Amino acid sequence: MSIDSAIAALAPHFGDRLSTADGVRDTFGRNEAWYPVTPPDAVVWPETTDEVALVAKTCNEHGCPIIAWGAGTSLEGHIVPVQGGITLSFDRMNQVLEVHDADMDAVVQPGVTRKQLNEELRASGLFFPIDPGADASIGGMAATRASGTCAVRYGTMRESIMALEVVLADGRIIRTGSRARKASNGYDLTKLFVGSEGTLGIITELTVRLHPQPEAVSAAVCGFETLEGAIDTVMQTIQMAIPVARIELVDQVAIKAINAYSGFEMQEGPHLFVEFHGSEQGVAEQAEIVGALCEENGGTGFEWATKQEDRTRLWSARHNFYYAVKQMFPGTTGYNTDACVPISRLQDCILESWEDQRDSGLNAVLIGHAGDGNFHLSYMIDPDNPEELSQAKTLADRLSARTIRMGGTVSGEHGIGIAKKKFMAEEHGEDAWQLMGEIKRTFDPAGILNPGKLVPGN
Amino acid sequence: MSIDSAIAALAPHFGDRLSTADGVRDTFGRNEAWYPVTPPDAVVWPETTDEVALVAKTCNEHGCPIIAWGAGTSLEGHIVPVQGGITLSFDRMNQVLEVHDADMDAVVQPGVTRKQLNEELRASGLFFPIDPGADASIGGMAATRASGTCAVRYGTMRESIMALEVVLADGRIIRTGSRARKASNGYDLTKLFVGSEGTLGIITELTVRLHPQPEAVSAAVCGFETLEGAIDTVMQTIQMAIPVARIELVDQVAIKAINAYSGFEMQEGPHLFVEFHGSEQGVAEQAEIVGALCEENGGTGFEWATKQEDRTRLWSARHNFYYAVKQMFPGTTGYNTDACVPISRLQDCILESWEDQRDSGLNAVLIGHAGDGNFHLSYMIDPDNPEELSQAKTLADRLSARTIRMGGTVSGEHGIGIAKKKFMAEEHGEDAWQLMGEIKRTFDPAGILNPGKLVPGN
Repeated sequence: MSIDSAIAALAPHFGDRLSTADGVRDTFGRNEAWYPVTPPDAVVWPETTDEVALVAKTCNEHGCPIIAWGAGTSLEGHIVPVQGGITLSFDRMNQVLEVHDADMDAVVQPGVTRKQLNEELRASGLFFPIDPGADASIGGMAATRASGTCAVRYGTMRESIMALEVVLADGRIIRTGSRARKASNGYDLTKLFVGSEGTLGIITELTVRLHPQPEAVSAAVCGFETLEGAIDTVMQTIQMAIPVARIELVDQVAIKAINAYSGFEMQEGPHLFVEFHGSEQGVAEQAEIVGALCEENGGTGFEWATKQEDRTRLWSARHNFYYAVKQMFPGTTGYNTDACVPISRLQDCILESWEDQRDSGLNAVLIGHAGDGNFHLSYMIDPDNPEELSQAKTLADRLSARTIRMGGTVSGEHGIGIAKKKFMAEEHGEDAWQLMGEIKRTFDPAGILNPGKLVPGN
Repeated sequence: MSIDSAIAALAPHFGDRLSTADGVRDTFGRNEAWYPVTPPDAVVWPETTDEVALVAKTCNEHGCPIIAWGAGTSLEGHIVPVQGGITLSFDRMNQVLEVHDADMDAVVQPGVTRKQLNEELRASGLFFPIDPGADASIGGMAATRASGTCAVRYGTMRESIMALEVVLADGRIIRTGSRARKASNGYDLTKLFVGSEGTLGIITELTVRLHPQPEAVSAAVCGFETLEGAIDTVMQTIQMAIPVARIELVDQVAIKAINAYSGFEMQEGPHLFVEFHGSEQGVAEQAEIVGALCEENGGTGFEWATKQEDRTRLWSARHNFYYAVKQMFPGTTGYNTDACVPISRLQDCILESWEDQRDSGLNAVLIGHAGDGNFHLSYMIDPDNPEELSQAKTLADRLSARTIRMGGTVSGEHGIGIAKKKFMAEEHGEDAWQLMGEIKRTFDPAGILNPGKLVPGN
């Protein structure tokens, strides 16, 4: 009854698809959060749901932790095997199984990445709009309830997952949801697994909602003298039900870095990067209205581009902003935050956080999915400087507390993992958090599924 | 330790807000499903969350069932106190507590009805789009995950509830979710309570998402020779991402009834009733495109109306269709179904169901929220004729089985209650349904919350 005995029990079945080699374990011990490398005891590459069920059943009997691994891009330490155990890599379960053109959905294995899915969808006229920065796996994105720049129009993984196949802790295989677009048919198990971060079950198949590739796309950029002008523009855009596909806030530091890195000449001040999807006529109308709102709110230089190369250049610059910022502050790494507040509080939350950071002397940069009230303030620190790391941690913690005070959440899209666990009781209330723990124990009495994360007392 | 002792314990606190009078019990023993009048042992009218918590705590100690009651309009027997107990009426918790214009959300008590909410929102420029036929309570709509004609554009209660206050079985009061528009912050308790039909907790406050009242609205009607033409039009509309606000399928029987009842002269055949929300220009463009699609698919007489009175007349006719049908088949009542399938299977599902019904000799009428793949085929029967009732039941059961076979759900929007419970294992699989039972026992170990409904073995 141990991790070793579980590995020994599984080894004959998996052969060279189970590894305990140091180099392999080291690779799967790394993470994008601020945790030291923490290798699992073994890595297993299942190829079928039945094999996942075999791992679960065996580990459940032996009391061995299982950590599901998609692309390893999560930011809050979700994939760190803090209690050792077996990391399940979904590298070999990476097939797009079905695409239903007429119903606009697809059935995929958890190891499929979002870019891979969109590649395979290209000829169908459909696309999958959820776009976290990294080329994350669809399984991992579901597990963390991820989103990205298009959530303002297309929703998050919460709205995108129609059905799941899940292996429970004891090896039972269940299906949740269906391909019907709505249902009033009992507890919403699908939504319970989405965002459960591998702690309630292991997702082995997903049915995702797709959208038609828009007939026309245009993008626009506008600079503002003040943050207020930019945020008021966002609020008015949403209030007028303009169906913007993206509306991103980029602060003056990021603009400076992008100018230098990607060869733009934007004025140094807060900017909105906006994208419109629709018919030719619809896109033109949206751009006209948002352009007028920008102007009313003190925006200048509103320009919109329908040419693919201009748009690509713009969004590449946006997506490369992190590299741009790292170039501007050589030797630093970003300590990220992920606040999401009601939009009416976005300005206050950002201003107070800026003030706090300015006093600290640390450099920081802000981008935001402003249409959702979600922003990432990243403190740029030397990772080998314990004082800077500690300072960033303190600032980030104060930002999280501020977010909760303003009626928001400490995690708009990155998840809880280990890093945000300390805020759970404060954000949800002790009783609601304890209830999550009760759900966890019901689903996983032996506590083998990604232990140490998200819920209390594990 | 009984129902009587629970009532005795609560009586001093509630005074005349607790009733055991026969007339009152009888009123709360009625339901819109095919169940005989089943009175609760008492009815209590709480005025605060703390009073609801007192009822829960007391009933939990005494083992007394609690049935939460909003407007009593549910269709599947959700509110029938099959094991007796106390019905909690939310008549006195019917306040709109907060409206946040900038964030486009509102905080309401569970007894607020959807029409009441929209009345109170009128001056704000916002509206709440979820519209089941009846003037249901927001609490009840959340509990059954209700939707209606606007779900194709605005989603269902699943997408509309941002946060809840819930009293648990033991009297603990928790809050779930927040006013942030997205979150990746642990298990989605909000979505777990939405659709739980009063079996996991008692909803005492809801934060609902609102939408801007559209600048322009227009409505259109188009007749088709074949069902296929109408459904192909719907599929193409959705695939082209035309953001129709409503797209309703109305069959020839309903058209005949509506013509007679509401003074229309529509050709007798399947029709689509469509509504467009947007800017003046956007609405015109949508109508033009959908009009062209109708024509391509053999539709005739496509007309669109922007005048309020024309639209009101049209949608009144649609909403009154049930009275119209009852007038056409005097002495009958509808035995309803609620199939929801992937849109690509909608035609097959309807055609097979029609054939089955035609063979039976029963009259039936069909309306459908076609954009969601959801339709209601109602068998019009004499409720005092046991043979017809049994025949309708058999047809409805076969329709439900057909729906599951086609990858859909037996309940698109009406819920499970008692009536659909027999399909749960087949639709979800035995293990998934058992898992729902495990969740239920975790939340409500004494089994006092709306017992006999939805989950296995209670």
